Amino acid sequence: MMEHTRNLSADPHCFGDAEREAFYKTVFTRRDVRGQFLPDEIPADVLSRVLLASHYAPSVGFMQPWNFIVIRKPETKQKIHGLFRTAHEEAAEMFDAARRDTYRSLKLEGILESPVNICVTCDKDRAGPVVIGRTHAPEMDLYSSVCAVQNLWLAARSEGLGFGWVSILDHQRLKDVLGMPENVVPVAYICLGYVTGFKDRPELQSAGWRPRLPAGEVLNFESYGQQDGGSAGAELLRQMDRRQQGLEAGGYTGDFASLEFD
Amino acid sequence: MMEHTRNLSADPHCFGDAEREAFYKTVFTRRDVRGQFLPDEIPADVLSRVLLASHYAPSVGFMQPWNFIVIRKPETKQKIHGLFRTAHEEAAEMFDAARRDTYRSLKLEGILESPVNICVTCDKDRAGPVVIGRTHAPEMDLYSSVCAVQNLWLAARSEGLGFGWVSILDHQRLKDVLGMPENVVPVAYICLGYVTGFKDRPELQSAGWRPRLPAGEVLNFESYGQQDGGSAGAELLRQMDRRQQGLEAGGYTGDFASLEFD
Repeated sequence: MMEHTRNLSADPHCFGDAEREAFYKTVFTRRDVRGQFLPDEIPADVLSRVLLASHYAPSVGFMQPWNFIVIRKPETKQKIHGLFRTAHEEAAEMFDAARRDTYRSLKLEGILESPVNICVTCDKDRAGPVVIGRTHAPEMDLYSSVCAVQNLWLAARSEGLGFGWVSILDHQRLKDVLGMPENVVPVAYICLGYVTGFKDRPELQSAGWRPRLPAGEVLNFESYGQQDGGSAGAELLRQMDRRQQGLEAGGYTGDFASLEFD
Repeated sequence: MMEHTRNLSADPHCFGDAEREAFYKTVFTRRDVRGQFLPDEIPADVLSRVLLASHYAPSVGFMQPWNFIVIRKPETKQKIHGLFRTAHEEAAEMFDAARRDTYRSLKLEGILESPVNICVTCDKDRAGPVVIGRTHAPEMDLYSSVCAVQNLWLAARSEGLGFGWVSILDHQRLKDVLGMPENVVPVAYICLGYVTGFKDRPELQSAGWRPRLPAGEVLNFESYGQQDGGSAGAELLRQMDRRQQGLEAGGYTGDFASLEFD
């Protein structure tokens, strides 16, 4: 097979260095925020941008199965917070004794402190029973709503908004509290608001709960678990390792897109 | 409750206008690419960046449940393409006669034309049986891998790489072809490569298969289906509508972050 190479600097579809860097900045400075929320209101123009970025996520068969339930009322938040408290206590009992105290010490949600909560849902009936791309993977509609969540998460970071995903909730009770019909699935319950700051690392990493996995442990070639990718695979892993070492040693420093290695 | 306002221009956590715009450019120019792939090789540094952006996605309990299987060999691609052909023919039979011809006319994958395929997986056993945040939502590990997919998708766009998600595959057979053990779920099968161009709109929208939903149909307040969000809700919807009208009328024009409405 002929190998094609490419003049990237002449590619009209590739973003400029500063644009790519801005994108990578959102990725590498994004955090799951639980404890740093400020009560400041989110202006309508800011909220409209992050919600529209979410609405323009990809979806299977262009289904757009999501709704965005914007929650601001203290009484709604209190009900959800009650669900969290119950589930959190149940969850603590599932951990072995050695980890239970650490688990209980972690701040895992900001439902009441954040000014806006958003529930992202998936309506499985939105485009009829047969959907392009869902015929052999019924979960693709749920995955589409997750893509919308991730767009919202990154957009929030670019706007300086903290975002926390609260999954420690009985999802059937969550459906009841928010009045969802049978065919609608709650995909994500989100806390959103300005913050005192963004942590340098994920909190579970800093707490020693789990380490960041090295690239070599997640990169395979041709089949699952196959770590030998020949010379092209070795070069790819080398590049990933070097970039990851930089991120882990010094955090994100603003030169991810332009950094080159010999 | 006291309402807090905020001096956004003085916020050290909010990105600058150009940085936010670059992020929104990735979101609004991202496409599901099927028919525009070029055979040009993807350089190792480019591929290492998009894979690392994916690896730094959020994950439940910092589980990082994903593997990335990088596929370049024609024989592997041919096997996957065979799975696609079978599933695609089965899927066509599921549509009613009126839509079947349109369905068959759509180009839905670029497995053989794209230089690199990537399968993103989810190892449900990666962090033991009890995972923070998964205790009450067992699907959160799969959703984490979807977040990694969406990071990869957006990173690819910023690098000028087309990305197509192929879900019309028998996923059990896909597991067999790629040698995945029982506890590993294939989440996304991706075609990746440089392209002749990115379409202005989703192809299913242009083909008249389904329209882009107006914001008002997906925005709710306090409970599912509730469209009345008071004056704050009305202002939020007005802002979303105005921005969406701009995107639908003229496409993405590079002033999404800075555009203001009276």
